[in-house]
Amino acid sequence: MEAVPLAVETDFDVRYAETDAMGIVHHSAYIVWFEEGRSAWFRERLADHRGYALMEDEGYFFAVTGVSARYVAAARYGDRIRVRTWISAVRSRGMTVSYRVSNVATGQLLCKGQTTHVCLDQHGHVVAIPVHWAAKLLS
Amino acid sequence: MEAVPLAVETDFDVRYAETDAMGIVHHSAYIVWFEEGRSAWFRERLADHRGYALMEDEGYFFAVTGVSARYVAAARYGDRIRVRTWISAVRSRGMTVSYRVSNVATGQLLCKGQTTHVCLDQHGHVVAIPVHWAAKLLS
Amino acid sequence: MEAVPLAVETDFDVRYAETDAMGIVHHSAYIVWFEEGRSAWFRERLADHRGYALMEDEGYFFAVTGVSARYVAAARYGDRIRVRTWISAVRSRGMTVSYRVSNVATGQLLCKGQTTHVCLDQHGHVVAIPVHWAAKLLS
Amino acid sequence: MEAVPLAVETDFDVRYAETDAMGIVHHSAYIVWFEEGRSAWFRERLADHRGYALMEDEGYFFAVTGVSARYVAAARYGDRIRVRTWISAVRSRGMTVSYRVSNVATGQLLCKGQTTHVCLDQHGHVVAIPVHWAAKLLS
Repeated sequence: MEAVPLAVETDFDVRYAETDAMGIVHHSAYIVWFEEGRSAWFRERLADHRGYALMEDEGYFFAVTGVSARYVAAARYGDRIRVRTWISAVRSRGMTVSYRVSNVATGQLLCKGQTTHVCLDQHGHVVAIPVHWAAKLLS
Repeated sequence: MEAVPLAVETDFDVRYAETDAMGIVHHSAYIVWFEEGRSAWFRERLADHRGYALMEDEGYFFAVTGVSARYVAAARYGDRIRVRTWISAVRSRGMTVSYRVSNVATGQLLCKGQTTHVCLDQHGHVVAIPVHWAAKLLS
Repeated sequence: MEAVPLAVETDFDVRYAETDAMGIVHHSAYIVWFEEGRSAWFRERLADHRGYALMEDEGYFFAVTGVSARYVAAARYGDRIRVRTWISAVRSRGMTVSYRVSNVATGQLLCKGQTTHVCLDQHGHVVAIPVHWAAKLLS
Repeated sequence: MEAVPLAVETDFDVRYAETDAMGIVHHSAYIVWFEEGRSAWFRERLADHRGYALMEDEGYFFAVTGVSARYVAAARYGDRIRVRTWISAVRSRGMTVSYRVSNVATGQLLCKGQTTHVCLDQHGHVVAIPVHWAAKLLS
């Protein structure tokens, strides 16, 4: 049996500043929403509102090495948004995180995406993810 | 007796994208947070999650004519933020909205500010705030 | 012989607001830089500073349907950035645009990416790219 | 005779991401433009493209303590923007910077504003502006 990765959901409202002159949410906002999904994942999994900030406190960082997004439908100001986030792969020195962004009221899929990350120490060197952090990512 | 304007509070987490190379939240993010406070005010007062979007649906807009902010203390990634928003003045064709941004965990004041707005119709002309909207602003 | 697509370069300075608490430019800023590269492509190819805005004036839009980026090295405040942009594919109803972001002073590659687009009319329907615009994209 | 402070101008194009659903540039973008004007001031006055980054290299920072803006007319995608920036006051531990944002093609004033700053050292303490930096600000 394959383990199903634990997903975390976070909901928020579209910010007016995130819209553009086409009247819809600008595509770059979803990249920030992915990050907010990632933050929510860490907050919920660590049961601590500082979440990923705790990892940075220890001098480790997940730098972003890649991002991809596919836009399916538009979001507008007045919409409530749900980001579903799960860690789809963990490697010695990095991880892949997946996202599904939808409209809370209609359930419609808006955007799917992934980010890839490497673990850096405070000198900016790529290092293995510390064991206690890797354990959390895999749980 | 002077009426105390009704304030609405909304809480959210600092987004990593909102931080800057000083390690703190960039001052422009607070301007977006003011707007999010304003959005929350409309959502709560109208008891409808679309809030201010309903006013735009009717062809009226509150354009921003001025903004001011005074920064008192820094916010960081990992902090939870509270924006307290109230309408401090309503005029025939506009309004002034006030904001108090604080750290939820410590209660510390981070930033105070105001925005001024004029009411525009869909042709971009300054017009009187429609009566039923003015009533909501004053309630 | 295969035609080499014409590339357009645009240079600008990192904005402080684009940095994050890691001290480097936030990954979402590159998505905005891609768009700025795309804008520069249209401005230069149309020899008109309004560029792509002219296409919107005619009621056509290139909505973003996908984005991908691979981050190779970090940019910092104080760096001057070059975005090289070319249209790597044109289809009846859409196009793919490619980007190479580098550091002007060192020539170092910072980021590579692509965006995909469909052509919409003013009602939001996917339509064929108008012939005179397709001709410009292919030139 | 009173000295007229030296102003620096920088021009750039509106980014699509800076527009909002009203079809105009979002008011928070001007706060980022003010900062870009400030960056341009330092780059030109120091005759070094790293500009203000050189001050941060020495461990000094100008934290923003206040911002105000008055919006006069809207900017749109396709507009070229000019930010005129000058240092309107220098104090022992801080400064005030003023901005005038206009449309390059028409010369129309779009926005006026000011930011206030205090000088911090690398520990985040408010300190006197180092003499050689104060001299540059006053020149």
